[in-house]
Amino acid sequence: MAVLRGPSADQPAIDLPHAPTLADVARRAGVSPVTVSRVINTPALVTEKTKLKVQQAIADLGYVPNLLAGGLASNRSRIISFIVPGTHLLLFNETVQEIVLRMAEAGYQVLVGFGGSNDSAFNESVLSALARRPDGMILIGSAPNKVTRERLLAARIPVVEAWDSPRRPVDMAVGYSLEDMSREISEFVISSSYQRPFFCWGLGPRALAIRHGITQALVEAGRPEPGFLQYSFPGLFSDGRHAINHICELPERPDLLLCISDWIAHGALTEARYRGISVPGDLGVCGFGDQDFAAHIDPPLTTVRIDGREIGRVAAELLLARLQGREPPERSVDVGFELVRRKSA
Amino acid sequence: MAVLRGPSADQPAIDLPHAPTLADVARRAGVSPVTVSRVINTPALVTEKTKLKVQQAIADLGYVPNLLAGGLASNRSRIISFIVPGTHLLLFNETVQEIVLRMAEAGYQVLVGFGGSNDSAFNESVLSALARRPDGMILIGSAPNKVTRERLLAARIPVVEAWDSPRRPVDMAVGYSLEDMSREISEFVISSSYQRPFFCWGLGPRALAIRHGITQALVEAGRPEPGFLQYSFPGLFSDGRHAINHICELPERPDLLLCISDWIAHGALTEARYRGISVPGDLGVCGFGDQDFAAHIDPPLTTVRIDGREIGRVAAELLLARLQGREPPERSVDVGFELVRRKSA
Repeated sequence: MAVLRGPSADQPAIDLPHAPTLADVARRAGVSPVTVSRVINTPALVTEKTKLKVQQAIADLGYVPNLLAGGLASNRSRIISFIVPGTHLLLFNETVQEIVLRMAEAGYQVLVGFGGSNDSAFNESVLSALARRPDGMILIGSAPNKVTRERLLAARIPVVEAWDSPRRPVDMAVGYSLEDMSREISEFVISSSYQRPFFCWGLGPRALAIRHGITQALVEAGRPEPGFLQYSFPGLFSDGRHAINHICELPERPDLLLCISDWIAHGALTEARYRGISVPGDLGVCGFGDQDFAAHIDPPLTTVRIDGREIGRVAAELLLARLQGREPPERSVDVGFELVRRKSA
Repeated sequence: MAVLRGPSADQPAIDLPHAPTLADVARRAGVSPVTVSRVINTPALVTEKTKLKVQQAIADLGYVPNLLAGGLASNRSRIISFIVPGTHLLLFNETVQEIVLRMAEAGYQVLVGFGGSNDSAFNESVLSALARRPDGMILIGSAPNKVTRERLLAARIPVVEAWDSPRRPVDMAVGYSLEDMSREISEFVISSSYQRPFFCWGLGPRALAIRHGITQALVEAGRPEPGFLQYSFPGLFSDGRHAINHICELPERPDLLLCISDWIAHGALTEARYRGISVPGDLGVCGFGDQDFAAHIDPPLTTVRIDGREIGRVAAELLLARLQGREPPERSVDVGFELVRRKSA
């Protein structure tokens, strides 16, 4: 532990002749050591009154349990590793919040690592996370390659892949089907009056799969292959303004923008208004994500709703079931998605 | 460690007669054990070529270092605890990303906890984090009370309070001065032609401090006390639409909205357009945060820019200095802020 100098060398609230132990806390609170342990490790299982009493004793004595040592002794670290794509935190906010909160309620803390921008970085993140001997792991996305899969299997801990619906999950998975989504968006486009869709899209494996699925369905329906402009997922408001400027210079102007995020779609709507392009008349705009603003902008945004909070809730539930020695009812949960039709397309 | 059943009971890539050790990896990579250890713990200090060689050996053997055991032996966990306000992840995205990435580069992993919505929840989060024996801690916000301060001091680890500039940091701090900011916003309002400012604001200690500072300066300048409507920080686009509806029903309509986030301000601009309220003529709108869209919306948003990435960078730097046994040049770093004047006010 680093040595601290200066003002931080003060003393804790109450001095005992020795560093306060769990037994000291139990004595002061008038409860059993097991109860103190429960308050620390599984607070959700303790009554509010007991919790307050024990927490007061902990505060009075300045007791700090050593879960690191406890973890080694019990072979449990009470740490969950959570690998999040490096640059996409924005889209996954609700999933991250839900997982951190639910695991904390159950007495686990969450070690967050970023997956980086490629498979090799992802692999490194998984290794680095496993080295902390987590009791379980949640990934946003799928294990990208064989090495990582094998490493996860060898760790013999429960693993949840979230957002994706991999055909062969390493262990458990919760997400939505990219194929179903591609099909539903394609059907929407084909049944609409729009003739020249255009992708403002990203390049990751998930983004490519959706774009490929939609393009294939359109071509099979006798439509021309849509144009494409790449934006870093999940994209910015300014990207949408750029996209409108770009398509206005094309020889044949697209009449439908499929944007990989609501942020891009929102920027596109704003730039379209500047330029006097009527939405949805001259140009349809679709977003992705159903962010909080999507229903409130002008015109309200047609978009795809993914329930990130529900994905987080289910991921935590799957992991906790396994950590508590139960087999979850399903190993692979599809939370679905919803194509929300509003006025922008 | 939880026992895993089913398909996860597969075997790793290469079987040794024993679980692969660091020495096995060193032998296979043709380097010293110290070098392997460096690749694992401080990859930034190793050449790319050596790193790849060692990583390949690690992958081939399916080696997983046990940093938990290593942590106990060396009394270092290589874990940093990071407490983030529960519902504000959105605003702190860049700070979180920067801290997780920079600490990972230096061989540390970041345990994220949410501070919850009140001091007692915050205190619990700090306790729960300290129980994992982190090598250091970063808080967004300040240690809210004496108990938490004492607990942090007693842990004798380096602590950084970020975003705030507390007068007496527990240990180190990086942020901006709420007083300076209140003064600059007040001067802007007083020197403008707006007569009736109105706060769309939050209730946390930081939000209250700014609101109080501005109100006081306005009253001292002979202006009436501004109206106030509370929104949960950092607020949503829909809150801004609601705010416009609210002020339109007031007997004397405010002519300047001071919004606690750019999201609220953006919603307010949109609703104002619906209602034919001219911005900035009839109504000025100010945001907070200078989000990516602020410069691109219509009209471009006058707002306060806080460099969350820089705060994260400095927080990591302060912590790493102390972890490496150096005293940072400053214990309290003010990264400042900028009142960005655009067209909305």
